[in-house]
Amino acid sequence: MPSNINLELLQRRYNTMGKSSPLFYEQPLHLVRGEGVWLFDNEGKRYLDVYNNVPHVGHCNPRVVEALHQQATTLNIHTRYLHDNIVEYIERLTATFGDGLSMAMLTCTGSEANELAMRMARHCTGGQGMIVTDFAYHGNTEAVAEIGTGFMPEAKHTKRVKSFPIPDSYRGIDGVAEDKLADAYVACIQRAIDEFTEEGIKVAGMLVCPDFANEGLLNVPKGFMERATALVRKAGGVLIADEVQVGFGRSGKHMWAHQWYDLTPDIVTMGKPMGNGHPLAGLVARADMIEEFSKVAMYFNTFGGNPVSCAVGMAVLDALQEDRLMENALSTGAYVTRGLRRLQEKYPLIGEVRELGMFFAVELVLDRTTKAPAIVEARRVINLMRDKGVLISTIGVTDSILKLRPPMPFQPEHADLLLATLDEVMDIVSRESAV
Amino acid sequence: MPSNINLELLQRRYNTMGKSSPLFYEQPLHLVRGEGVWLFDNEGKRYLDVYNNVPHVGHCNPRVVEALHQQATTLNIHTRYLHDNIVEYIERLTATFGDGLSMAMLTCTGSEANELAMRMARHCTGGQGMIVTDFAYHGNTEAVAEIGTGFMPEAKHTKRVKSFPIPDSYRGIDGVAEDKLADAYVACIQRAIDEFTEEGIKVAGMLVCPDFANEGLLNVPKGFMERATALVRKAGGVLIADEVQVGFGRSGKHMWAHQWYDLTPDIVTMGKPMGNGHPLAGLVARADMIEEFSKVAMYFNTFGGNPVSCAVGMAVLDALQEDRLMENALSTGAYVTRGLRRLQEKYPLIGEVRELGMFFAVELVLDRTTKAPAIVEARRVINLMRDKGVLISTIGVTDSILKLRPPMPFQPEHADLLLATLDEVMDIVSRESAV
Repeated sequence: MPSNINLELLQRRYNTMGKSSPLFYEQPLHLVRGEGVWLFDNEGKRYLDVYNNVPHVGHCNPRVVEALHQQATTLNIHTRYLHDNIVEYIERLTATFGDGLSMAMLTCTGSEANELAMRMARHCTGGQGMIVTDFAYHGNTEAVAEIGTGFMPEAKHTKRVKSFPIPDSYRGIDGVAEDKLADAYVACIQRAIDEFTEEGIKVAGMLVCPDFANEGLLNVPKGFMERATALVRKAGGVLIADEVQVGFGRSGKHMWAHQWYDLTPDIVTMGKPMGNGHPLAGLVARADMIEEFSKVAMYFNTFGGNPVSCAVGMAVLDALQEDRLMENALSTGAYVTRGLRRLQEKYPLIGEVRELGMFFAVELVLDRTTKAPAIVEARRVINLMRDKGVLISTIGVTDSILKLRPPMPFQPEHADLLLATLDEVMDIVSRESAV
Repeated sequence: MPSNINLELLQRRYNTMGKSSPLFYEQPLHLVRGEGVWLFDNEGKRYLDVYNNVPHVGHCNPRVVEALHQQATTLNIHTRYLHDNIVEYIERLTATFGDGLSMAMLTCTGSEANELAMRMARHCTGGQGMIVTDFAYHGNTEAVAEIGTGFMPEAKHTKRVKSFPIPDSYRGIDGVAEDKLADAYVACIQRAIDEFTEEGIKVAGMLVCPDFANEGLLNVPKGFMERATALVRKAGGVLIADEVQVGFGRSGKHMWAHQWYDLTPDIVTMGKPMGNGHPLAGLVARADMIEEFSKVAMYFNTFGGNPVSCAVGMAVLDALQEDRLMENALSTGAYVTRGLRRLQEKYPLIGEVRELGMFFAVELVLDRTTKAPAIVEARRVINLMRDKGVLISTIGVTDSILKLRPPMPFQPEHADLLLATLDEVMDIVSRESAV
């Protein structure tokens, strides 16, 4: 094992957190410091962070830390008293939405946001049935675990969740022509609705990440989202867009991922990047749904929307705007994509490169025709990248898709280091696997 | 309306959060600053905080703010990398427990902690049935709302929750002698278990606050908790002690409320005071349960247990110890209790005074014999107290019990102000209601 693994700390971690508490990499990293797009381990070694989207405006962003400190010194209190910060923050947040999405409820985590969204959808529609993809993860509470078709145990036993095949233009459906894919996936939504109806379960809604990020940052067949949403609404359900991972301008072009489509969700959930690491999450929804739900369920979240969290949230919006990070996501994102496509030309292992602003998926395949997933190779790539000082991870049904999702201040010079290192590692792994 | 209500802010709050988002007091308070046991409104008026337990070691405690700032400047990252803080924090936290409660899982909110505890209990026992009191509140997610028999809509429809009457020595059960009360309440637990058995539902556990704080900070009939726990375990279930409200030394004598009893829970959940307002919560549980659950459910909480949260958690433990706040809870707590008992002698409206270190319940009744709850009077008392600069609230089935639960640095001089103001207000309300 490399010298920088603190075995004593690892053993103490096992003793206090158990052996199954998830850790990245075959040789876990022991981190001590972060700054911008960089992380530093206990021996001072520097790592380029091409994985973490939570530190959205950069690790330890001074503007955000200052706002946190300033408000924590002044007042931190729950929302049963009046305070300017929560009102100002929600006003600024909802101003980035349109079409009646004018109210918000703040929580601390994305799981809580998705819990709340589903409680609201079920109350307002009177239905229980929820439609999700067949490789979904939306959090770790019980009702959210039920829709965690990716790997959550509760998903196996529930009767109020139906899943549809991930709408994947790259892999498609056997025997379905490319221009018929949208029709085929839309038919799967109709089938889920019909099954619910047959079983006497009223549809409450569809909950999806508009970019299908965990599913592999899919290129969704054109028209699918709009048509699926229309079917769900016709059945009495609502659309919940889970933007916990992809929101806050990561795509560069739009603040919210659903804005790529010609539709407006009924509820949008958000979290991870919202507080740059501070536990801040929530939902923006149709005002009538928030009013109707709040009347029956006295919703109160002890820490949600406190003045410190809201000060942090506003500092993130400020940094995003003043440092022009969405513009950077577009320009540097395009630069990274061009580099990844050059690597695709060079390495047959790379089946497809997909991108969305500052989020990239590099799908590894053993064979470009069969598209057999290169599972072992993907794992090898991320571990070699880690050893060479660049942090990435994997996503997708078989964990064979490289997930590149750096903090938003990622610059072309960082892209150069990423691309050079990936080139080096792809070369090693391609030789090893002889693909 | 008093001049210090910012009507424009209130209207903007309605527009952004809806009209049903809960606010304290008939005239909401607009707060701008906090320090120790004091809060300040937008006109500079000072309020003695005798309500908030979240700012456990005092509003804006400098030691806690400094730890927050220091770590936020250095690194804030999730737990899939190794970091010293989470390991150190859990070691310090679990050292305050005994008997195999040696591991922890950290979350951001008490709701998440109770969600996780129930998921774990259900996985490890193979049961679904949960036993709670008939006036319970344990959080705001769906599965937790199901056990919210106090007022949560989901509690009305679930089949996997049974409730037992709140074990209240003051009000008791009609026709049951005082020395038979424990037997009678224990019989209610057996009845819940029997009903589950008849319905084919295996018992997963009992989830209660050991002090029954929301139920009214009850004096529990002696032996009830130990005997109820034994019955639940005999039926295959576990005991989950919800210490979100009452943990972290509030009782003065013990760090944890369950330590008043002769029993060890299988899982203890915690939150509110844990981070002095920073969103930090979690559970401590039997190591074998955490290991077993973690193997099947890949539990990961993006913000839970990050280095900033753990630095804050350690600073709270430091402040508690070095400022001798548990000793203060015992001594100042006893001082407050003596003062409340003097008021009880003076005002027939006060039916009973109950205390537990730095937590007090003052039960208001229209008649000491019938014990008819003084609901209108309790509401009037808290609003008059607020107008006179002392913040308290109500608890209990009919909201007729005054809830006094100040930050732990509460001193005898603050108690004098509390008691003098309460005397003044009780005099007014007693005259008004002519009790």
